[in-house]
Amino acid sequence: MFLCRYETEDGVRLGARLDGDRVVDLTSMIEELGVGAPGDPAAEFIRAGQAALDAASELLTRAPEELVVPLEGLRLLPPFRPVKVRNFSVYEGHIRNAVRAAIELRAGRVAADLADRLGIARPPRAWYRRPLYYKGNHASVIGPDAEIVRPSYTEQLDYELELAVVIGRPGRDLDAATALDHVFGYTLLNDVSARDVLTGELLSRMGPAKGKDFDTGNVIGPWLATRDEVPDPRALNGEVRVNGRRRATCTTSDMRYSVEQMLVEASRGETLVQGELIGTGCCTWGSGLELKTFLQPGDLVELSLGRLGTLRNRVAAT
Amino acid sequence: MFLCRYETEDGVRLGARLDGDRVVDLTSMIEELGVGAPGDPAAEFIRAGQAALDAASELLTRAPEELVVPLEGLRLLPPFRPVKVRNFSVYEGHIRNAVRAAIELRAGRVAADLADRLGIARPPRAWYRRPLYYKGNHASVIGPDAEIVRPSYTEQLDYELELAVVIGRPGRDLDAATALDHVFGYTLLNDVSARDVLTGELLSRMGPAKGKDFDTGNVIGPWLATRDEVPDPRALNGEVRVNGRRRATCTTSDMRYSVEQMLVEASRGETLVQGELIGTGCCTWGSGLELKTFLQPGDLVELSLGRLGTLRNRVAAT
Repeated sequence: MFLCRYETEDGVRLGARLDGDRVVDLTSMIEELGVGAPGDPAAEFIRAGQAALDAASELLTRAPEELVVPLEGLRLLPPFRPVKVRNFSVYEGHIRNAVRAAIELRAGRVAADLADRLGIARPPRAWYRRPLYYKGNHASVIGPDAEIVRPSYTEQLDYELELAVVIGRPGRDLDAATALDHVFGYTLLNDVSARDVLTGELLSRMGPAKGKDFDTGNVIGPWLATRDEVPDPRALNGEVRVNGRRRATCTTSDMRYSVEQMLVEASRGETLVQGELIGTGCCTWGSGLELKTFLQPGDLVELSLGRLGTLRNRVAAT
Repeated sequence: MFLCRYETEDGVRLGARLDGDRVVDLTSMIEELGVGAPGDPAAEFIRAGQAALDAASELLTRAPEELVVPLEGLRLLPPFRPVKVRNFSVYEGHIRNAVRAAIELRAGRVAADLADRLGIARPPRAWYRRPLYYKGNHASVIGPDAEIVRPSYTEQLDYELELAVVIGRPGRDLDAATALDHVFGYTLLNDVSARDVLTGELLSRMGPAKGKDFDTGNVIGPWLATRDEVPDPRALNGEVRVNGRRRATCTTSDMRYSVEQMLVEASRGETLVQGELIGTGCCTWGSGLELKTFLQPGDLVELSLGRLGTLRNRVAAT
């Protein structure tokens, strides 16, 4: 099932995709299930677990006409509101390309070649031992078609194409064999970055800060796909288009660590919470930095990833 | 005003300190103000702003006997639930002491002396240009008297004594002159750390992860002091006691950057949100690492900071 949230005059509604053109309004079904105080219908749906999924599946097979809404013209929101964001980095190619490009942009090609030969562009040694992550900013999440506002302090605004995991069932110290049972589903994440700021921060010991933390800095959607829709999260092909022109392709099969391994690491001594978003890191060639090009106000960025759909956003100046 | 939350059979209550021994129950006052759906009374109080503060002040001057509760025996909770956590690091002495001690523990005294002379123990250059921060884990917050559970993966569990700022009024791109208008108040933070894990993470480019992210890893309280109670956040003296014995003293006057400067940095291009917690970093001598000593299960840690009170927690094994 592919879920979305959209805005109407009556408030925020939860929808499920019926086919390419239509959505079924699940909001009243959620209310009937009585799963909690009226609030974010997607959060209630996630909380309701299998009961809500079963009810929604049944509703989709015999959707009454009055609940069917044409997708066109819907004002889509982020498919849910993450309560917490964490981002892994598990693509060796992305790290090598990005570090090499950052050096080349600052110090020229000879320096970048030298860095390559000295192994400076490789991930740190710890990266080969376990998946590494940093924590993101869940307050800055926007959805499809919303504007990405370039902060005034960067000249190098960039996109990152990522598969993201959404936690459904809380859990701690997960083991790899059952870790996926805690996943509600998947969505596409554009982990927007200010490269000129971020590069310095990665060397400052504290990790990403203002290079990632700005309003509109996390874009998710358009769909929240339930787990069954993505049987193999390492078999998704991605594509980046800027202003309608294809710029890069990528694949989640390049991940060094599996989703299960990331969940095991994230949950060591720590309870994963319902509605938590876990990015799996930028795919190799999934950023503009790797191609030494950045976003400008007015640009239209489109990221696609397998069946998760296409996330489309225009860049605006501050 | 000094606020606290406590648990009763009727649910979570919000209290204000009347004197050293007594608290006034503000919960029904909050409900009367009708500031929102019943939920976390502290969040509602912060949201209600000046109206709630005025009403509470008046109530404190003529508190009816039935609302006065003896402090002794109350099961205190964290004074509020942070919706987001970020931690600055603004004490040069803490950084130098901590890096030196970490090197000494791993490689001996000669190596630590050498690191000192080579300037390796100094903060990175960027630190002298602006206050640096990392993002914490708001899902792991506990309060006074709760157990700090040592994760199984660390042998070097440690405390950190910090002043923390609580955001009341949202805002972005704050300027130093008016930044404090966005502060609701202050609380004491014990930013619990797994040193053996953290040291490696600080060198991995991604910043603190499992060295900080574990259940019970952030302790706040006992009080949430309103801003007027802390006219000068750089004039607070702190004290660390472990198992009843004084181990260190510290002062917030050692901060390199002011609270205003930290708020300006945090809000660059990013809206600070209501109920956000901003730690100002571990005071010089405010950690055990600086003294090359760590916490063991059974230890009682007591951190005090000026009028913010004493935060007391016992360490438990996993």
